[in-house]
Amino acid sequence: MAYFEQYGVAGISALRDIIAKAKELGMLVILDGKRNDIGSTASAYSNAYLAETSLAADALTVNAYLGSDGIRPFLEKCRENDKGIFILCRTSNPSAGELQDLKLTDGRLVYEAMADLIAAWGEDLVGEEGISSVGAVVGATWPQQAKELRERMPRSFFLIPGFGAQGGTAADAVSGFDNNGRAAIVNASRSLMQAWKKQGVKDEDFADACRAEAIAMRDSLREAL
Amino acid sequence: MAYFEQYGVAGISALRDIIAKAKELGMLVILDGKRNDIGSTASAYSNAYLAETSLAADALTVNAYLGSDGIRPFLEKCRENDKGIFILCRTSNPSAGELQDLKLTDGRLVYEAMADLIAAWGEDLVGEEGISSVGAVVGATWPQQAKELRERMPRSFFLIPGFGAQGGTAADAVSGFDNNGRAAIVNASRSLMQAWKKQGVKDEDFADACRAEAIAMRDSLREAL
Repeated sequence: MAYFEQYGVAGISALRDIIAKAKELGMLVILDGKRNDIGSTASAYSNAYLAETSLAADALTVNAYLGSDGIRPFLEKCRENDKGIFILCRTSNPSAGELQDLKLTDGRLVYEAMADLIAAWGEDLVGEEGISSVGAVVGATWPQQAKELRERMPRSFFLIPGFGAQGGTAADAVSGFDNNGRAAIVNASRSLMQAWKKQGVKDEDFADACRAEAIAMRDSLREAL
Repeated sequence: MAYFEQYGVAGISALRDIIAKAKELGMLVILDGKRNDIGSTASAYSNAYLAETSLAADALTVNAYLGSDGIRPFLEKCRENDKGIFILCRTSNPSAGELQDLKLTDGRLVYEAMADLIAAWGEDLVGEEGISSVGAVVGATWPQQAKELRERMPRSFFLIPGFGAQGGTAADAVSGFDNNGRAAIVNASRSLMQAWKKQGVKDEDFADACRAEAIAMRDSLREAL
């Protein structure tokens, strides 16, 4: 969302129009806003992005550094409006470990403690297929951790960033899927948006280049699964 | 910022207009956005709120769960554009401790580890008066922690929420000030915005009620200092 927000009102207008277009096409919309605040303000964020407003999506990424009362309003929207959230657990960036990998006296790492919170928050929101609306962001650049986190959060949907531009491979990415090869979404942004550069095509072929890259990505994930 | 965001494009327009009005009046603007992301996206957030755009403020609150590379773009803007950030350290909400108070094997708590990161990030950005542009959010509802955190972050500006509606008193709030009674901003939102309710006045006297409450708050802080 930062890329829209940096253009102020015009950027938010564009975001609104893109969300509308995506819905019109029947696409699922996940807003990567990493929002977080105390209860009353988290409630306003959940109104902004998980209700029936012009910026509302199907799911939102959320940062849970503030604990349960900053998460509860989002859980309510998940239940009432059939929405989803993905809570930052172990992120894909190089410095993620500075806080997330610190070791606790009970033997867990900070991100494992976060995983246990995420699993608990999601317990009451498990759908018919056995998967919870309360998901976790688990970086594709850390495949071993993704496997261990799957054990801690067996029913959580994983949002797996880091594929492509951030260096994650298909084999890395699928390590977070559940035993049925499900319950995960692998996200790519720059590698798709900038596919036209890599393929050396002109601006007008932007969409074709993006589509070709998306199909290649899908096929490589299918193969790795 | 959530309260603006929930009204979509209209809300962001209102935010832009209020920021413009505040600047016109010579006021300092701190946006409580708690933004966070990986480096490239954090850079876009820093463009949105700490550059020369229509939504740019003097300072922004930031969440550092992702570590240094999500913070570095904000540090650059602090340096280049003479801006400030306040990084969430120990927040004022009831469930803050679920993650922030977990104990690490090195004897620190998670929020103390965050404080040490904040102090380190701020080292190169200490101004003439000995105070860094890299501040910390330290809840007023936890006065003993504020005192200890002041020792870990002697040069950081503290943003102290929780006064008023969240239950923090003036004595609680001033526990985070430095030895010279400086380097802290005590924030109140609901207790000021909703002062007209408490004082039983009508809508049209909203501003007077807010002003009276702000003056009472200032006086109680001065007394406690």
